[in-house]
Amino acid sequence: MRRAMASAEVGDNVIDIDPTVRELEERAAAVLGMPAALWTPSGTMANLIALSVHLKRGDRFLAPKNAHVLNNELGSAAWLAGGMPEALDHDGGPGRPKPESVAAAIGARGGPYYTLRTTLLCLENTHNAAGGAVIPPHEHAQLLSTARQAGLQVHLDGARVWHAAVALGLPPAALTVGVDSVSACFSKGLGAPAGSVVAGSREFVERARRMRQMLGGGMRQIGVLAAACLVALDRVGELAEEHDKARRLADGLRELGWEAETPETNIVLAPVADISVTLESLRVQGVLALPMGGKVRFVLHRDVSGADVDEALRRIKAGGHP
Amino acid sequence: MRRAMASAEVGDNVIDIDPTVRELEERAAAVLGMPAALWTPSGTMANLIALSVHLKRGDRFLAPKNAHVLNNELGSAAWLAGGMPEALDHDGGPGRPKPESVAAAIGARGGPYYTLRTTLLCLENTHNAAGGAVIPPHEHAQLLSTARQAGLQVHLDGARVWHAAVALGLPPAALTVGVDSVSACFSKGLGAPAGSVVAGSREFVERARRMRQMLGGGMRQIGVLAAACLVALDRVGELAEEHDKARRLADGLRELGWEAETPETNIVLAPVADISVTLESLRVQGVLALPMGGKVRFVLHRDVSGADVDEALRRIKAGGHP
Amino acid sequence: MRRAMASAEVGDNVIDIDPTVRELEERAAAVLGMPAALWTPSGTMANLIALSVHLKRGDRFLAPKNAHVLNNELGSAAWLAGGMPEALDHDGGPGRPKPESVAAAIGARGGPYYTLRTTLLCLENTHNAAGGAVIPPHEHAQLLSTARQAGLQVHLDGARVWHAAVALGLPPAALTVGVDSVSACFSKGLGAPAGSVVAGSREFVERARRMRQMLGGGMRQIGVLAAACLVALDRVGELAEEHDKARRLADGLRELGWEAETPETNIVLAPVADISVTLESLRVQGVLALPMGGKVRFVLHRDVSGADVDEALRRIKAGGHP
Amino acid sequence: MRRAMASAEVGDNVIDIDPTVRELEERAAAVLGMPAALWTPSGTMANLIALSVHLKRGDRFLAPKNAHVLNNELGSAAWLAGGMPEALDHDGGPGRPKPESVAAAIGARGGPYYTLRTTLLCLENTHNAAGGAVIPPHEHAQLLSTARQAGLQVHLDGARVWHAAVALGLPPAALTVGVDSVSACFSKGLGAPAGSVVAGSREFVERARRMRQMLGGGMRQIGVLAAACLVALDRVGELAEEHDKARRLADGLRELGWEAETPETNIVLAPVADISVTLESLRVQGVLALPMGGKVRFVLHRDVSGADVDEALRRIKAGGHP
Repeated sequence: MRRAMASAEVGDNVIDIDPTVRELEERAAAVLGMPAALWTPSGTMANLIALSVHLKRGDRFLAPKNAHVLNNELGSAAWLAGGMPEALDHDGGPGRPKPESVAAAIGARGGPYYTLRTTLLCLENTHNAAGGAVIPPHEHAQLLSTARQAGLQVHLDGARVWHAAVALGLPPAALTVGVDSVSACFSKGLGAPAGSVVAGSREFVERARRMRQMLGGGMRQIGVLAAACLVALDRVGELAEEHDKARRLADGLRELGWEAETPETNIVLAPVADISVTLESLRVQGVLALPMGGKVRFVLHRDVSGADVDEALRRIKAGGHP
Repeated sequence: MRRAMASAEVGDNVIDIDPTVRELEERAAAVLGMPAALWTPSGTMANLIALSVHLKRGDRFLAPKNAHVLNNELGSAAWLAGGMPEALDHDGGPGRPKPESVAAAIGARGGPYYTLRTTLLCLENTHNAAGGAVIPPHEHAQLLSTARQAGLQVHLDGARVWHAAVALGLPPAALTVGVDSVSACFSKGLGAPAGSVVAGSREFVERARRMRQMLGGGMRQIGVLAAACLVALDRVGELAEEHDKARRLADGLRELGWEAETPETNIVLAPVADISVTLESLRVQGVLALPMGGKVRFVLHRDVSGADVDEALRRIKAGGHP
Repeated sequence: MRRAMASAEVGDNVIDIDPTVRELEERAAAVLGMPAALWTPSGTMANLIALSVHLKRGDRFLAPKNAHVLNNELGSAAWLAGGMPEALDHDGGPGRPKPESVAAAIGARGGPYYTLRTTLLCLENTHNAAGGAVIPPHEHAQLLSTARQAGLQVHLDGARVWHAAVALGLPPAALTVGVDSVSACFSKGLGAPAGSVVAGSREFVERARRMRQMLGGGMRQIGVLAAACLVALDRVGELAEEHDKARRLADGLRELGWEAETPETNIVLAPVADISVTLESLRVQGVLALPMGGKVRFVLHRDVSGADVDEALRRIKAGGHP
Repeated sequence: MRRAMASAEVGDNVIDIDPTVRELEERAAAVLGMPAALWTPSGTMANLIALSVHLKRGDRFLAPKNAHVLNNELGSAAWLAGGMPEALDHDGGPGRPKPESVAAAIGARGGPYYTLRTTLLCLENTHNAAGGAVIPPHEHAQLLSTARQAGLQVHLDGARVWHAAVALGLPPAALTVGVDSVSACFSKGLGAPAGSVVAGSREFVERARRMRQMLGGGMRQIGVLAAACLVALDRVGELAEEHDKARRLADGLRELGWEAETPETNIVLAPVADISVTLESLRVQGVLALPMGGKVRFVLHRDVSGADVDEALRRIKAGGHP
C-alpha cells in the first residue's frame, strides 16, 4: 500500500484532475453499483455531505437507534445538514427497525404546512453499534420499499458495507439497490490510512462536490491517499478472514465464561459486569478494546492475525476476566 | 379583554418602552417565579428562543416523545437552535420519562472531544400530546435533580403550565423551581388572541431579547396584545372550570361507549377505530376536534360552556359513535 | 384604528382562518401588485422570510450599503437565511447602485462548482439609511433588468414603499414590477401598532408561510392587529402631508444654519459637528431624534403636526444648534 | 517528499496519537509563534474552523475586499460559521485597509441589544487576490492595535504567510504577533500534496479540534500527509527563489509590452484587454495561468524553474501577446 502511495500519479483534485482519485471514484462507483462517486476525507464527511444534499432545513429523517449519524457525528446532522432526527428501535433485529415501524414513524403524508415532513431514511449496514450486524437482503428490500412508497429518499451509511457484502456472499452493489446515496470507507477494516467515498446519481455527486468544498473537504494532490484506497478496494474479499477471526475470538471468550455475542462480521461485543474495570484490566494485559454501550467491543482487522487472537485469549484468561 | 386592548397604553417595545408589555413581563415573571420574562409573538418562538440561547451547535437535548419542541415546531430546534434531539419514552407516566431513563440517556460525562454532549433537558407540563398530562411535583423534582446533577440545563415548555398549576392546586411558581427557563402561553386555554412569554434569569432574558430580534419577533406598539395577556393572566384560577367540563365530557363519552381517557386538565383524548371516519362524522354534526396520534382530541376552553358539552354529547350520541 | 381593532372579526391565523388577516393579505397583495401576501409580525421577519425562501446556503446576494437587511437585522441574513452578502456603493444616487455596478458585482456566470453563486438582488425603496431616498422608476427598471438578465431574483425591502409611491405620484404596484418578492410595513409612517406583509407568487407565499411558522411568527387570532393594518392601508395617500412637513422642517433647519439635506419623503438627515452633543441638547429641549451614520435623523409621521414642526424649530433655535 | 511519506510513522489522528501529525503540529506552532496548532485537510477548512470558533451567530467580521474567506469559500463564513461579513476597501495598500477604515467600520461599541456586533478582523498575508501582496509589519501592527482596542479578535489567513515572511526577511512568528488564530498551508508554494494547520491558544485548538470533527475533517492515519508537510516546512527559506523567478517573469513580460505588476512574492498579475482571448492563447502555447479579477495570474512554484520562466516568455512572445 505504501508503495502504491509512493508511486501514485496525482493532480489537483479540487479542479478534478487527479487521475488516481478519478480512478478510485470510478471503480468505487462501479463496485457500489452507483452512477458516480466522490472522494471524501472521512466517512463522517461522506455522511454529512449526503444528509446536507438530501435534507431541506427542518426535514425529519429516520435512522436506527445508535446509528453513526445520530451518535457519532457531533450533532452535525441537525445543526449543519438541517435535519430533525427520529431514532427507531431495533425491533426488526440488531441494527434495524421493522418496515412497519418505519411506516408508522413516517406517519400520514400531505399534512398541512405546519407539520413536520419526513423525507429521508438512513440505514447503516453493517450497523457498528449493534456489533457489526448485517441487514438481511429481504429486510433491506422491504425497508427500502416502505420508504420509497412514502416518498422518502434513502441514504445508506455503508462505512462497513464491504463486511456486509462478504458476510452475505453478495457483491456490494447488491446491497445498494434502490438507495439514493451510499457512503463507504476505505480505512477501518480495509486498512487504508484515510479516505471514503459518497456515491449516488451524477446530479447528486455534483451537488456533493460543492458541499464537500463548502465544508473544506476539497484537497489538492490527494491521489496519494486514493492510491491506498484503491489497494484497499482490492482487498474486500479478504475480509472473510477477519470474520473467521472474530468468530474464533467470540468462541474463545465464551469458553472463558464471557457472554460474548456471536459476531456477524468483524466486531465482537461482550457485556461485562463493570465496563471500566474490565477495560482497565485488558489494557494492563495489552489487549486493546473500546467500550460500546456498556459492552466491550473488540474489532478484528488485517493486522491482527489468528495467532494474535489466540495470544489475546491467553492474556484474557490470565487476567481472570470478566 | 377587547376593552382592555382598546384602552391599552403603548410604546415601542423594540426599544423596550411599551408600558403594558413591561407590566405583563413583570407580572408574568412574578407569577412564574422567575427573575425576568420576555414577551414573544408565539409559544413556538418562546421555545425556539430558549433552545437557541441554551444550546451550542450540536449539543444534544432530551425531551419526552412527542414533545411540542420535537414534533410541532418544524424541526427548528435542530436546524436553527442547533440541537441534536433525543426523544425519551414516557416510561415515568404520560408525558414524562423516569429519572433513571434521563440519567441513562445522558450517559457518561467528560468523554473525549469527539463525543456528543448532552446539555439540556426539556420538559413539557402539561404535556399536550399526552392529553394534557400533569407532571407530579415529586417526579418533577427528581427529573430536575437528575438533570442538574449531570450538569444539564432545564427548559420547561409551560405553554399549559397554568393548567398544571390549577390541577395540582399549586401556584405556577411552584412548578418552575430549579428550571433555567420556562415558556408560557396566554392564548390557548387563557383566551388571549396571541402572545407568550419566555422567562429566566436576567442574563437569559437579555440574550433572549437579542435572539427574538434576530428571529423577527421584535414588534412595536404591541401593548394592545399585552393588555389582552394581562386579562388572561388574571383568569388562571378559572381554568378549574375547564377541567370540570373536560371530566364531564369524558364521563359522557364513556357512557356512550367511548374509551375516553380520564382527563387531568382540559384535554380529552379518545381512541377510536378509524380516526378519519370519526372526525368526519363529528364534523358533520358540528363537533370540533382534531386528531392526535390516532386518537380524537377534544379541547375545552372558556368559550365552551357546560351546556355546550351536553349539546356535544347529544350530537355525538345522535351520530352513533364511535 | 383602536375602534377597528376592538371590533375586528378574528380566527386562528395559523390554520389560516382569520378573516381580517385574509382581507389584509388580499388587499395588500392587490395594492402591491403581487399574486399573494402573508402577514408577518415585523418587517424584519418579512425580509428574513423572503431571504430564507430565495437563498440556498452560501448563495451571494447584493444590497446597497447600509441596507436594512445588512445593518439592522443582526446578521440573520447570513447565519439564518444562509446568504453571503455583498454591499454595493450608492454610486447610482442615494440608496442605490448603478446598474453597471450590479452587473460587475454579479460577475461572470456559469463558473466551476467551487465558485460563489450570486442569486439575489435586494433593493430598498425608500432607502432608510439614505434618508428616505426614492429610487427613480427608470433606474429601478434598469436595476431589475440587469439582475434578471443575469438570472438573479429580486427582493424589494418596501418597508417604506408607500412613501416612495406617494413621492413619485404612482401606485405602489408600479414600484414592484418585476420583483419576486416585496416586504411592506404598516407600522412606522402608516401608524399601525405592528404588522408587515411579504408578498410574491402563490408558491412563494406558501413557502413563506412555512418559514414564518419555523421562525415562530405564526400567531393565532391576530386579526386585531390586521384590522389596524387595514386602517393604515387606507391612509397611504395621506403620507404626502408627512413629506410636506419634512420639507418644512428641513427648510426651517437651514434657516437656522443647519446643513439639513432636502428630504425626498418623511426623513430629514442633518450632519452635525458632534452628534452626541447635538442629540443630548435636542433631548433636553424635548425634540426627539436618532443618530444615523453621524447625522441627526428626524422622522415625520401622522402624529406630528405642522404646528409641532414649528414648535420643534423654535426649540432648536432656542438651543442654539448645531 | 514521497520518501518521507512512504516511511512515515502513523497512528489514529482522530484520537490524537499519530506521531507524525503531532510532530507537524508542534513544529508548525513553534514556527508560527502560537501555543498550539491543529492539522486540517485544507486551508479552507482551517479558515472555516477559525471563524466558527471565533464567531457567534450574527457577529459581524471585517475582511479586506476579495479576501479568500469572502470570495473563495462558497459563503461558508456566513451560513456555517454564522458571520456577517463586511468587506473593506484596500485603501491602505494592496490587500489591506487603513487602520482608520477598520476603526470606522467597527463603529461605536456598546450599542443597544438590537445593533450588529463587530467581533472579528480577518487579515490575509500575503493577500492572494491582490497579487500576493505583503502587509508591511508596521501597518500590520497598527491594524491589530486598532482591532484589539475595539475588543475584536483577529484571525490571520496565512495560507501564504511563508511568502510574506521570506519577502520581509522575518521569521513567520514575527507576522502573527497579537493574532488570536492563524491558518497556514503546506500545499501551494511549499509543494506538499495537501494539508494545512490552524494555530492559536491551547483552548482555541481544543475547540477547533471539535469543530474539525463536526465538519468531517477528522482523518485517521494521516501522518503520511503530515510527513509531506514536514518536508514542506523545511523549505520555507527556498521560497526566495520563487520570488526571484516571479520578478524575472514580470520583467520579461514588461519587455514584451505587458503591463505586468511588480510582484512582491510569487504571484504575477497582468491586466490585459480581453482576458478570455489572452488565456486561450496562452493555453494554446502551453503556458498555464488563471484569471483573477480581469487580470492574468501567473503563479511561480518550486517545480517551475528559471529556464521554464524563460521558455514561457519565449512562447508568450511567439504568441504575440497581449
